[in-house]
Amino acid sequence: MSIERLHDPERHDFGSDNFAGAHPEVLAALATANRGHQPGYGADVYTARLRDVVRREFGAQAEVYPVFNGTGANIVALQAMAQRWEAVVCAESAHLHTDECAAPEHHGFKLITVPAPHGLVGPEVLPAIAADRANRHHAQAGVLSLSQSTELGTCYSPDELRALTSTAHRLGLRVHVDGARIANAAARTGASLRELTTDAGVDVLSFGATKNGGMFGDCVIVLDPQATAGLPYLKKASTQLPSKTRFVSAQLLALLQDGLWLRNAAHANAMAERLHRGLLEIPGTRVTHPVHANAVFAVLPDGVADALRERWTFSTWDATTGEVRLMTSFDTTADDVDALVAAAHDATGRIPA
Amino acid sequence: MSIERLHDPERHDFGSDNFAGAHPEVLAALATANRGHQPGYGADVYTARLRDVVRREFGAQAEVYPVFNGTGANIVALQAMAQRWEAVVCAESAHLHTDECAAPEHHGFKLITVPAPHGLVGPEVLPAIAADRANRHHAQAGVLSLSQSTELGTCYSPDELRALTSTAHRLGLRVHVDGARIANAAARTGASLRELTTDAGVDVLSFGATKNGGMFGDCVIVLDPQATAGLPYLKKASTQLPSKTRFVSAQLLALLQDGLWLRNAAHANAMAERLHRGLLEIPGTRVTHPVHANAVFAVLPDGVADALRERWTFSTWDATTGEVRLMTSFDTTADDVDALVAAAHDATGRIPA
Amino acid sequence: MSIERLHDPERHDFGSDNFAGAHPEVLAALATANRGHQPGYGADVYTARLRDVVRREFGAQAEVYPVFNGTGANIVALQAMAQRWEAVVCAESAHLHTDECAAPEHHGFKLITVPAPHGLVGPEVLPAIAADRANRHHAQAGVLSLSQSTELGTCYSPDELRALTSTAHRLGLRVHVDGARIANAAARTGASLRELTTDAGVDVLSFGATKNGGMFGDCVIVLDPQATAGLPYLKKASTQLPSKTRFVSAQLLALLQDGLWLRNAAHANAMAERLHRGLLEIPGTRVTHPVHANAVFAVLPDGVADALRERWTFSTWDATTGEVRLMTSFDTTADDVDALVAAAHDATGRIPA
Amino acid sequence: MSIERLHDPERHDFGSDNFAGAHPEVLAALATANRGHQPGYGADVYTARLRDVVRREFGAQAEVYPVFNGTGANIVALQAMAQRWEAVVCAESAHLHTDECAAPEHHGFKLITVPAPHGLVGPEVLPAIAADRANRHHAQAGVLSLSQSTELGTCYSPDELRALTSTAHRLGLRVHVDGARIANAAARTGASLRELTTDAGVDVLSFGATKNGGMFGDCVIVLDPQATAGLPYLKKASTQLPSKTRFVSAQLLALLQDGLWLRNAAHANAMAERLHRGLLEIPGTRVTHPVHANAVFAVLPDGVADALRERWTFSTWDATTGEVRLMTSFDTTADDVDALVAAAHDATGRIPA
Repeated sequence: MSIERLHDPERHDFGSDNFAGAHPEVLAALATANRGHQPGYGADVYTARLRDVVRREFGAQAEVYPVFNGTGANIVALQAMAQRWEAVVCAESAHLHTDECAAPEHHGFKLITVPAPHGLVGPEVLPAIAADRANRHHAQAGVLSLSQSTELGTCYSPDELRALTSTAHRLGLRVHVDGARIANAAARTGASLRELTTDAGVDVLSFGATKNGGMFGDCVIVLDPQATAGLPYLKKASTQLPSKTRFVSAQLLALLQDGLWLRNAAHANAMAERLHRGLLEIPGTRVTHPVHANAVFAVLPDGVADALRERWTFSTWDATTGEVRLMTSFDTTADDVDALVAAAHDATGRIPA
Repeated sequence: MSIERLHDPERHDFGSDNFAGAHPEVLAALATANRGHQPGYGADVYTARLRDVVRREFGAQAEVYPVFNGTGANIVALQAMAQRWEAVVCAESAHLHTDECAAPEHHGFKLITVPAPHGLVGPEVLPAIAADRANRHHAQAGVLSLSQSTELGTCYSPDELRALTSTAHRLGLRVHVDGARIANAAARTGASLRELTTDAGVDVLSFGATKNGGMFGDCVIVLDPQATAGLPYLKKASTQLPSKTRFVSAQLLALLQDGLWLRNAAHANAMAERLHRGLLEIPGTRVTHPVHANAVFAVLPDGVADALRERWTFSTWDATTGEVRLMTSFDTTADDVDALVAAAHDATGRIPA
Repeated sequence: MSIERLHDPERHDFGSDNFAGAHPEVLAALATANRGHQPGYGADVYTARLRDVVRREFGAQAEVYPVFNGTGANIVALQAMAQRWEAVVCAESAHLHTDECAAPEHHGFKLITVPAPHGLVGPEVLPAIAADRANRHHAQAGVLSLSQSTELGTCYSPDELRALTSTAHRLGLRVHVDGARIANAAARTGASLRELTTDAGVDVLSFGATKNGGMFGDCVIVLDPQATAGLPYLKKASTQLPSKTRFVSAQLLALLQDGLWLRNAAHANAMAERLHRGLLEIPGTRVTHPVHANAVFAVLPDGVADALRERWTFSTWDATTGEVRLMTSFDTTADDVDALVAAAHDATGRIPA
Repeated sequence: MSIERLHDPERHDFGSDNFAGAHPEVLAALATANRGHQPGYGADVYTARLRDVVRREFGAQAEVYPVFNGTGANIVALQAMAQRWEAVVCAESAHLHTDECAAPEHHGFKLITVPAPHGLVGPEVLPAIAADRANRHHAQAGVLSLSQSTELGTCYSPDELRALTSTAHRLGLRVHVDGARIANAAARTGASLRELTTDAGVDVLSFGATKNGGMFGDCVIVLDPQATAGLPYLKKASTQLPSKTRFVSAQLLALLQDGLWLRNAAHANAMAERLHRGLLEIPGTRVTHPVHANAVFAVLPDGVADALRERWTFSTWDATTGEVRLMTSFDTTADDVDALVAAAHDATGRIPA
């Protein structure tokens, strides 16, 4: 069988936004960047140009460090921000805590997890954690890591972020944002990237591209110049220095320079909202988190999820309640959504009362 | 300025084989793989197919683990092979030791470096290192890591490898091969990948694609089933689990399935040999290492290197002797080589006696 | 001021069992061991003899590794038991999690914490954790660590331990016991050390001496021979190889050879029980955990704790509820306890209604 | 057999200065410190007093952190001094590199080793290492660690130290001294502790007590206030926070407050010098390193070392040359030395010409 036939190009799943491939413009940018030789490890023209674009978006002091993936961005960022003895505060639902196979701990970080309704950390949890540093036997909080949008599909507003960063800074914590899906938060809130980061007091951002139309590659964007000293070395030591960095930078450029990042995210969000509305019309459906971004969490009527799984892939989020997660991406179509909703209706009808 | 104009597509440098972009067939494979949705993290059809191709090349027990880059492959492989208290033996010239910004130590590994003429480790150094494990205060050697081809452009023959692995195994050491450029060694020796690894007693291989026509992505190939237990988790914990793994696998497939890997490497080797022969005709040139693969190390007559740097990029390997490293890649042309050699002749002529 | 006058030798606090000094027999053993020269790093006669005594107590396969302290014992033990990619399951109240300033994470371990009423883990929490290993993005549980006695002053019975170890082993988890206070558990349950460890299916024990009449020094006792391979090297690499190991072994011998360990712990337990009974007679006192060992946790009537702090040191366990922890040690006297209880009565009377 | 008979109290070996026990005054100080209760973890009166004595000896800005042992002191010190991405420069003969079973690498440090004739690093090696930081792929030197006295029995003079620290500081390196045997260097050079550290520009010192009459326990002394921020937490996280810290502090006080540290070291040095002179009179003996401190390195005539081993323990330093290391300690007597020298003469005579 030839590679061409390996899978159905029309298939759009709801399993994750990383089930999608790359956006055609990103693919085209890779082809363009492929011409000729360029110095390795970030000394290429694409990375230089990316630097300019990032400063246009995030402010003049921003420094950009292309890496391979989101876990890499997080691990490099946290190492650059936190002293050797410092711990990281994050939500119980943070990807850092739940889905990185202990990568933070593998690199020496204790995570101090806090309850976070709908995935959102509130500033009120921080004073007790900071006060606990008085005990020398306890983990010493040094960084607050927030996911934006969160793993539960919700977003912080710029005001909420400012409240968090001002409390954190007052208490001596730096603020990291795991922005694997920050584009979705920008699309939702209408805030610019700068308003969601630099202007909101964020110190270091893991900026995600892979889930938003990229093929591979994300970047660390440092807004606090103090965190830049070790970053180039930590990238290499942490296996996150792409030899052909131009190909990461070219993707980021394709997304950032003309707003593709925002169009992709806005579309994914709109598809999630369409799905949300569709599911609400199915009697017995309970949506479990606000739908701010590109994920819908819901408990469907008995039997419906199983019926849908015959045609689509999506995650079981909580096997005990039957909660599922349905994710949309830049290439989800209205037809994809409508077909799934229709199938859910059908399944509901099919189930004997 | 548009991206299209950012650089000269005809420019071929001698700085590193990672200055080259991706081979057109690799780029085409990425475009093909981009169609539709695929499950993330290696559950895709390309990775499944890659598994078959790898077993065809390396033997039925081989397991393949796509990762982002060579440092990642090395770090993941070594963690999977070595107990927590074990050290890694390698050449003084090993990339692991000299060029990974302390990535092995960052992950807890002490490197026991051994002298290696022209980059080649000999089995005679191993017994003393193994005997030293009797001292509980000393680092405990657990793995021997060999670079093939070496960082100095030389290769181990299958016989040399077997001598090393049999000595190592007898002494209780597992054998890792850093094969960032194993394709060049295969092209040089005429041995198959299987003859250079499985049949030669190698336990785990870091198989390089990026330097040989890939865009990004290498893989760990495990030939000793005992080393597979932790590999999936170590990939994730070490930030080396690509979410869209299909794009790494598609590149590896493009290279491996029809011999492109070998054609690329053979061409690069041939260009290095052409360069080697050309430089030898320049009076006063001293070639410092045998030219087995795609690198030429040489001390050029006074002033020649500086003259060449006006048009080409290449590495100063030893500033005290003026030794330079010139590397070729899959896209280096005979014209590229001939132009550089001609310029070297010119520069020699231009230098006042 | 001379050292002799530096503090009041009659002062006995309730702050921690490590506020006490060494038992006189331990001090005498150190003086005896101080004569002449002995080889360093455990090749001395005391360590040889300790090995015999440990095998007498724990069984013929037991291996003993003297270390400096309890955190060191835990860290060395866990590294010897767990693969590089494995996480450790423990109670939310485990010292490992709450009081080691992130030492486990500093050494690469993620802790998977589980609810543990009164500090006691139940086997029913284990299946879900083991099942979660099916998800490659999640931490991979490899070891269950139990504190015996617990940080909340409770003990596991041999039956409870067997239920835990059999469930754990069935699920592929090894079992570590943090026995900083295992002596108190033995005194409480009437079980021998062997019944609480080897016979109960425990794989590796951190055996505490410091809190039970020692000056410094604890040890790792390995009951599962598979965990011994790396222990000598992990001790050194983790800074836990005492150069003059004879002095750790001499203390352990003094405690173990004639039952001093049990007499000390039984006395401390009895003093805690006396304190417990005394406090229960103070109206308005609420004892918050069963008193099995040498700690009493209680919420005292308003103002009483503050009054007691004028004369004694003890921990505030929960500032929000006013819960305090009072610990007894081998040298706590009945007079110490009675004086504190009397002062508590007085304080109750003094408080205006 | 009772413990009292376990070994011959008159036996003095030449194996290591840690074959000796504790000095009687140290033992007496432990007995004194054993009275009554004291807060744990360094909040005791002995540690407070130690702080004063350390400041008297090292200057008002000095901060002292008692730990368990020399490897612990080194590991804690280096973590407090070096950023996460920084490497440590040390002599090829440094204990850090040769005898700590990879403890530095276990904690993430790459060691950049430099040639050091007779164990002594010269400032001329530093510029090339510092310049190498321009290469982002190379380890980034952050700390220079010097052993004083060295592992080969030699000492740096205060002038030599100043030349090293001024070069290091100019190049952006902080300076650590592994002072497991700094007392022997002070005795040799006649310089005070302050002249050898604070006044010589040393930033952080591992101050050794165990090898110089202590039972267990050394300390980190920080002279550069910038290195103090994380030290308390790194001690705990690195398993080096003694719960009964008073017993480490009491030993350090016994050594430091009235000059016992210097008397012990001067005696050990004198015994080494006596041994040195004695061995020089044995025809065919070759002393391989200058004898500055308490170690004699020598190649003895054929058969002599084997004959001496019948009665004494000492190290074979180089099995290929037969070089041995003979160490003296605070309790080595002139009779011990003379007996060994006499036996060496005898052995020489016994060997057939």
